[in-house]
Amino acid sequence: MIQIKRLRSTDVGFNDAVEKLLAFEDAQDALIYATVSAILADIKKRGDKALLEYTLRFDHLDATAVAELELPHDRLQESLRKLPVERRDALEYAARRVRAYHEKQLLQSWSYTEPDGTLLGQKITPLDRVGLYVPGGKASYPSSVLMNAIPAKVAGVSELIMVVPTPGGDTNDLVLAAAAICGVDRVFTVGGAQAVGALAYGTQTVPRVDKIVGPGNAYVAAAKRCVFGIVGIDMLAGPSEILVICDGKTNPDWIAMDLFSQAEHDELAQAILLSPDARFIDDVATSIARQLEAMPRKTVIRASLENRGALIQVRDLDDACAIANRIAPEHLELSVGQPEKWLDKIRHAGAIFLGRHTSEALGDYCAGPNHVLPTSRTARFSSPLGVYDFQKRSSIIQVSESGSAELGKIASILARGEGLQAHAMSAEYRFMNLTERND
Amino acid sequence: MIQIKRLRSTDVGFNDAVEKLLAFEDAQDALIYATVSAILADIKKRGDKALLEYTLRFDHLDATAVAELELPHDRLQESLRKLPVERRDALEYAARRVRAYHEKQLLQSWSYTEPDGTLLGQKITPLDRVGLYVPGGKASYPSSVLMNAIPAKVAGVSELIMVVPTPGGDTNDLVLAAAAICGVDRVFTVGGAQAVGALAYGTQTVPRVDKIVGPGNAYVAAAKRCVFGIVGIDMLAGPSEILVICDGKTNPDWIAMDLFSQAEHDELAQAILLSPDARFIDDVATSIARQLEAMPRKTVIRASLENRGALIQVRDLDDACAIANRIAPEHLELSVGQPEKWLDKIRHAGAIFLGRHTSEALGDYCAGPNHVLPTSRTARFSSPLGVYDFQKRSSIIQVSESGSAELGKIASILARGEGLQAHAMSAEYRFMNLTERND
Repeated sequence: MIQIKRLRSTDVGFNDAVEKLLAFEDAQDALIYATVSAILADIKKRGDKALLEYTLRFDHLDATAVAELELPHDRLQESLRKLPVERRDALEYAARRVRAYHEKQLLQSWSYTEPDGTLLGQKITPLDRVGLYVPGGKASYPSSVLMNAIPAKVAGVSELIMVVPTPGGDTNDLVLAAAAICGVDRVFTVGGAQAVGALAYGTQTVPRVDKIVGPGNAYVAAAKRCVFGIVGIDMLAGPSEILVICDGKTNPDWIAMDLFSQAEHDELAQAILLSPDARFIDDVATSIARQLEAMPRKTVIRASLENRGALIQVRDLDDACAIANRIAPEHLELSVGQPEKWLDKIRHAGAIFLGRHTSEALGDYCAGPNHVLPTSRTARFSSPLGVYDFQKRSSIIQVSESGSAELGKIASILARGEGLQAHAMSAEYRFMNLTERND
Repeated sequence: MIQIKRLRSTDVGFNDAVEKLLAFEDAQDALIYATVSAILADIKKRGDKALLEYTLRFDHLDATAVAELELPHDRLQESLRKLPVERRDALEYAARRVRAYHEKQLLQSWSYTEPDGTLLGQKITPLDRVGLYVPGGKASYPSSVLMNAIPAKVAGVSELIMVVPTPGGDTNDLVLAAAAICGVDRVFTVGGAQAVGALAYGTQTVPRVDKIVGPGNAYVAAAKRCVFGIVGIDMLAGPSEILVICDGKTNPDWIAMDLFSQAEHDELAQAILLSPDARFIDDVATSIARQLEAMPRKTVIRASLENRGALIQVRDLDDACAIANRIAPEHLELSVGQPEKWLDKIRHAGAIFLGRHTSEALGDYCAGPNHVLPTSRTARFSSPLGVYDFQKRSSIIQVSESGSAELGKIASILARGEGLQAHAMSAEYRFMNLTERND
């Protein structure tokens, strides 16, 4: 029998119980930090040579030049051709929908002119070159390649470089096929902190990128944290989470399976149900117990639900929304009648799935929005991965001659107030009676 | 006589010379990291008690409760009243312009409905609570308070908490007056890594925030890097930079003063001129030598220009734009005729100042755009601080009944391909012939 925590929001100590349930902090281990720092410094200093050595040591992949670790385009296309037709069609269908949604995210430049002729604006440009980290092994999913690569390409990134460790030379055809579909420009079979270092600093063979995105293990995450500032990085992902709010009128088997779909990712994944209906919660618990045994990943699901899952009885749906905002979940299902009525009350969530038919799994693969979402309550301050992560802004300021007199006086007063005389004079020169070499 | 590096873009080894000139890396000192980690862990564990101890140790400020370190609203208003009228008016004028520009940056929610009734969208919400770090001492500017606080307030952040160290109890009236103008909600006179820790974890008295912005010294920067992920952080700022592109027809005194205005910030600040006109470069060099002696901050200006400045002769303005993109400067002046002609060629810069009358100093104070800009070539991948830094997105997915059949089949194929059976079944349940409890 599986034991899942049962809580009631009216219980004394409920808030503390929730905090305890959610407690998870990205391990910032001093030993990992020291190891990663040393690898990064070495890659920065010795480039290709160091990259080859670490790849031999950690991935048991022996090459005499980094060029041998680059996969040619033909290799990606071959992986795509080898894919069963049904799976290839599904992947391409998903890619089309993801592309269509992300095209709506494109930021546009804007500007406006003031009465005195001064023009102000914001110019949007894509990043030049982006690195995409794809993990080797069990956490390596073709859908993740789609979700990371497509927004970059929609943004207009001209060169997208994927790195993927292939321990012992084992490549993952699904991942390579996804790279082919997305138009990834180059692929190197390197991984770990050494791959992050190669992308951040550049080596003789691997070009330096402007930003690194994609999930990885604790070493990869630590390496990204270290190179943040030299290149851009995406968020640091924690275990996946789902919070389901249900009014008690959805089929309990559906809800149980939604909780499973999150729990099966990882023993640290978190699946929580909020419902005002105690009998419904019993039904879901019964369904969980009944369905669990048939699941291929039942061991992972059990560990996840027993350690980090919870079934919580709330006062009403308002109470549920307030708790959801406190939790700021990665995925939030509003499995209720008239879900749009409750949408306004939700302030913090990575993705919100409305209605009984919108299972979270659709969002993982093909609904269109990104499945790279803020975890560990970071939806309080961050957003799904998107096209905007691969675009940036430059401010545009063109002050007219008369504008330079009005603004110059203000700037001069404030600059002198801050003790910055050159700032003041550089503003004053524009409106004081000085010779200007006009063309 | 001042010695500034002279380079020509046609010289052999020019690219290497530029790389050397720009070389600057945020020091990630292991000792600083260890110190900061220990302080953060202590604040997390002991809260107020630890915050009081560090404030006594580092700022020589003795208090028995953190509440004593909070400045009441009256204190901020009093600082505003004490301000000379001219300066107060200038600060309020600047605040109005900064607000007007930033209001144009507000992101809006959007959604669209597909033919089968499936709705997709993106919902925008402000952050709930933001921490603003303001340094004590020489780098503490009222204009910085405006530039950090106004975008947060325009975004709709409901609680903005400022921390500012006041070593020995010395408060800065200008900074407090700026806080009053911007509507900062609470101010604590704490600083350093301990203030960052208090904001990130919360203490008994200081509420936990969702994001921390604002400049600080190496300890503050290291602390922000450590808490990144627990809270959001803004970029990690390096020394300030200006790159001036001039066709040789602007008054050389103006250009010299523009270079000074950057150089006077800091001995590590960087000021570079690109011009195709060798005689003009001579004129600017002469003007620099002539004007330097009269500058109150001449020692800083001299050190900055001699160590990190350069006057570079380029082939033509196209060449200048290409070099500017490589440098990706924080501030870029296009001091040329018809500057809008060249704007399209600029891909990487924090802020672009067009035309001879647009001195960079106007942007620092009152033009409207933010003066918190990406430094150290990070304009390759990051943007000025803006309203968008205080808003976040949630994906919205509402799949119709018929949509759940079409999308569910695709999700099922892809999920089974990835070995995630619960994902597949949770999608399948929605379109297989199962009992649904409808309301």
